[in-house]
Amino acid sequence: MRTSNYLLSTLKETPNDAEVVSHQLMLRAGMIRKLASGLYTWLPTGLRVLRKVENIVRQEIDNAGAVETLMPVVQPFELWEETGRSEKMGPELLRFTDRHTRPFVLSPTAEEVITSLVRNEVSSYKQLPLNLYQIQTKFRDERRPRFGVMRAREFCMMDAYSFDIDKAGLEKSYQAMHDAYCKAFDRMGLEYRPVLADSGAIGGSGSQEFHVLAESGEDLIAFSTESDYAANIEKAEAAAPTGDRAQPTQEMTLVDTPNAKTIAELVEQFDLPIEKTVKTLFVKASDEVDADIIALIVRGDHELNEVKAENLPQVAAPLEMATEEEIRALIGAGPGSLGPVGLELPFIVDRTVAMMSDFGAGANVDDKHYFGINWGRDVELGQIEDLRNVVEGDPSPCGQGTLMLKRGIEVGHIFQLGNVYSQAMNCGVLGPDGKNVILEMGCYGIGVSRVVASAIEQNHDKYGIIWPDALAPFQVAIVPMNMHKSEEVKEAAEKLYAELTAMGIEVLFDDRKERPGVMFSDMELIGVPHTIVIGDRSMKEGNFEYKNRRNGEKTAVAMADIVEHVKAQLA
Amino acid sequence: MRTSNYLLSTLKETPNDAEVVSHQLMLRAGMIRKLASGLYTWLPTGLRVLRKVENIVRQEIDNAGAVETLMPVVQPFELWEETGRSEKMGPELLRFTDRHTRPFVLSPTAEEVITSLVRNEVSSYKQLPLNLYQIQTKFRDERRPRFGVMRAREFCMMDAYSFDIDKAGLEKSYQAMHDAYCKAFDRMGLEYRPVLADSGAIGGSGSQEFHVLAESGEDLIAFSTESDYAANIEKAEAAAPTGDRAQPTQEMTLVDTPNAKTIAELVEQFDLPIEKTVKTLFVKASDEVDADIIALIVRGDHELNEVKAENLPQVAAPLEMATEEEIRALIGAGPGSLGPVGLELPFIVDRTVAMMSDFGAGANVDDKHYFGINWGRDVELGQIEDLRNVVEGDPSPCGQGTLMLKRGIEVGHIFQLGNVYSQAMNCGVLGPDGKNVILEMGCYGIGVSRVVASAIEQNHDKYGIIWPDALAPFQVAIVPMNMHKSEEVKEAAEKLYAELTAMGIEVLFDDRKERPGVMFSDMELIGVPHTIVIGDRSMKEGNFEYKNRRNGEKTAVAMADIVEHVKAQLA
Repeated sequence: MRTSNYLLSTLKETPNDAEVVSHQLMLRAGMIRKLASGLYTWLPTGLRVLRKVENIVRQEIDNAGAVETLMPVVQPFELWEETGRSEKMGPELLRFTDRHTRPFVLSPTAEEVITSLVRNEVSSYKQLPLNLYQIQTKFRDERRPRFGVMRAREFCMMDAYSFDIDKAGLEKSYQAMHDAYCKAFDRMGLEYRPVLADSGAIGGSGSQEFHVLAESGEDLIAFSTESDYAANIEKAEAAAPTGDRAQPTQEMTLVDTPNAKTIAELVEQFDLPIEKTVKTLFVKASDEVDADIIALIVRGDHELNEVKAENLPQVAAPLEMATEEEIRALIGAGPGSLGPVGLELPFIVDRTVAMMSDFGAGANVDDKHYFGINWGRDVELGQIEDLRNVVEGDPSPCGQGTLMLKRGIEVGHIFQLGNVYSQAMNCGVLGPDGKNVILEMGCYGIGVSRVVASAIEQNHDKYGIIWPDALAPFQVAIVPMNMHKSEEVKEAAEKLYAELTAMGIEVLFDDRKERPGVMFSDMELIGVPHTIVIGDRSMKEGNFEYKNRRNGEKTAVAMADIVEHVKAQLA
Repeated sequence: MRTSNYLLSTLKETPNDAEVVSHQLMLRAGMIRKLASGLYTWLPTGLRVLRKVENIVRQEIDNAGAVETLMPVVQPFELWEETGRSEKMGPELLRFTDRHTRPFVLSPTAEEVITSLVRNEVSSYKQLPLNLYQIQTKFRDERRPRFGVMRAREFCMMDAYSFDIDKAGLEKSYQAMHDAYCKAFDRMGLEYRPVLADSGAIGGSGSQEFHVLAESGEDLIAFSTESDYAANIEKAEAAAPTGDRAQPTQEMTLVDTPNAKTIAELVEQFDLPIEKTVKTLFVKASDEVDADIIALIVRGDHELNEVKAENLPQVAAPLEMATEEEIRALIGAGPGSLGPVGLELPFIVDRTVAMMSDFGAGANVDDKHYFGINWGRDVELGQIEDLRNVVEGDPSPCGQGTLMLKRGIEVGHIFQLGNVYSQAMNCGVLGPDGKNVILEMGCYGIGVSRVVASAIEQNHDKYGIIWPDALAPFQVAIVPMNMHKSEEVKEAAEKLYAELTAMGIEVLFDDRKERPGVMFSDMELIGVPHTIVIGDRSMKEGNFEYKNRRNGEKTAVAMADIVEHVKAQLA
């Protein structure tokens, strides 16, 4: 490709409205342009990368035995009513009516369409297992789209759906997709982790997320220092402390704490170690509990894990914290003075809290705390659960090593759905015994456009993007200096361009009438991995200059050897 | 691909709701399934063909120097207001609002988005010429979607947009796209014609349609028997008859014609040659005419060409025929008794009519006609225009040969738009002299999904589809007979499958436990061009059977030679 035929559209300045690095660099490198909130046009450079991701995903999903289809972006609303998701999705599901006032949606995902297809097309267990996928435009009407294509409204997603006769088949299909995802992200040259994830409202028995590791990631992931264990912090289990609870050494005392509304103030004013405090949080209870509110107690320096809380049968989903008014109406004290002693509400304590002794907590009276509380002696312990987020140094729940935390960007998700959708939509086949069997489904997604952004979050420097070879929009850049003045430079550049492109190498030939500095910084910004500089001076010495984008090294390469040198770099 | 891993979904019966052959065969061959009116899921077999068309189009458009982009399916409504097309498109333009009640449309095409992009990104004539395209989902809310993907609401289209500094540049860009289209349709193995087309409401100075020839085509195309001239019947010029008008031989007489309301009845009851009659049609006049209605007169056996009529400055666009009431209010007679003699309205006569003598026409009085009318003597001739559709045998307007008519399916269209959009959206660049120049645009479309259907309309027999090699979902089918009983057959089939796939050949290996007859008819229905049958009996003689889908020929090929034989067929 010659830049003169191309739409380079690089920008010198960082646009004001781009918060994260990938968004900034995608705009600056001329990869995308905003059409409206959450809607982006992919310019040529961006689309080349998007297609590379798409093709790697397609090949690996094909290799896993899945078969490609293409479902409409516009879907009948009635299918979404059949599974009840029309309500669950809320306003993210964009609805509209056609010219005959029939209701439709823009597809955010396709469980309903594919299940409806399979129930019509597949009638016998002999046709299973079957895994159907598509790589197609999706739409989610995000309330606040941001970070460019990272959280856009319209985006490109690979979504696959497996159908099996039984759970064993589902597990096999699931594992095949897990492995295909690993191969795809390996090929892309990304540092990523499959992590255990909560399957949440979608249900089913198992689920993993694939995260590209990057400091800017929105998600926290917990890893074992010793094993392969990795889990989204939503899911990572905080193992119960081992050993026995320490014996009481203090009497329980009621203390005036007029200026300690928070744990931080309490710790500071009373010289209390934070590990000797607890937070008591009031949340809405589920119908299983004979009260409107239930209390959850975690250690002062720990955070409540909302997903773990929500998954408890006693807690209403989605999790809802009680308001200050509700707390006052119930207890007569504010949220800064709550605690288990004398609390006339059901409560659940975190595993770590259950092992504490001589600790402090609110007295359920404004401006008063109890210090020196001990379980059993001062208050009954009751139900113990894993309620908190893990922290660095926690023992790994796998039993090996301790946990460390890293940030990640979720780019893929695989689910064992089970029969949630197949049951609701009556999707079954005749089994070997001639009886109808409801199918076991898995669903699998990769955010193709999001992978592009996450690769940039992981691979950039102050000059621009540093593409892994497999994702680069071009493999090689040719930068001829003052080509429009020097016939030798022009000739050498044209010859090299012809040679490399004839070998199937994707070359960006910068034939613009620009200063060398402009050309260099554009190629660095776009992130072309390998650049060959052709100039009068080096040619007099019989050389071209080769520059590696990732390590910045420059090498003089004999003109006769340049093609071999490039081939060696690409190998 | 093994059929056991695949979703074959062939149907024995022709679905009732499919009117045209391509729709019937796409359903029967398991290529598509209807999700809702005008919305189709592409099953694996269909998608494989769609991708082949897409890839050929992409390669040839790339070779023509165009650069690929990807624009959102969801576009802001305000862009469509800027060009005034929000109204022109009518209810085919699907509108909706997002969760914040901002108005959007589903993209039927992208002139507005691309022009808005180019006016922001391109600032100098040095960046031109530029040709940007996408292959993307489009949506048109057709009032009556039909014929499967031939006239669907959601479909896949390649749309390209060229930007040039002047008309000469536009013509060059246009010609490059014309040639790329020819290469693409040549490679697809389709019988097609580029034909002159009316540029209609879209404006601009030139336009051609690309038609796949098929008896079921909705469009009529006129060809010269002697030259390359081809034009859509909407556009094909009916040359003026040569020579002089015959002298009058009859007196004009007023005749009672109480039972002749139509030309057919007149001809039959009065033994009048139809070439001696005319039809007088009342249509709405434009503002240029000092009357609400204008009459158009064509010969009795000719058809009014509505596009030619609409393009006349005297005729209102879109063309609207006067109702019977309007005619009666104006003339006092019904539409069956109109004619030029004594008509107190402006009228325009067709070139052929202008050469008639001694002809019959309505007398503008119910149940009365004049016979023996002659121009000049009985009524003034006035304005002469080309008003009619050409018919077979007309002289070709190119001057060589006569015209013949064929039916075609429009699969592509190229337009010289000029500055219609660039002017409305102020899309200009700095020219060589530093002054702003409004750009000259071309736009170019290929209905990718429609090409698939049109290829079937052109290539099928009573057994199913006969794909041209370049479009076939699979190149080769392997049909092993009773593989599940014969270890030799199984082994030979597996070996051949492994060999052919290793060579990059796309093979469908029918490993189902089905009767050979079922397998044969499925492969014929799907239209795989080359089938290899593996059976016990022929193997005893050392042979496989090769069958060619297009000519039906069966050949015994030595097992050792089969790979070479297949390669020779594919070459």
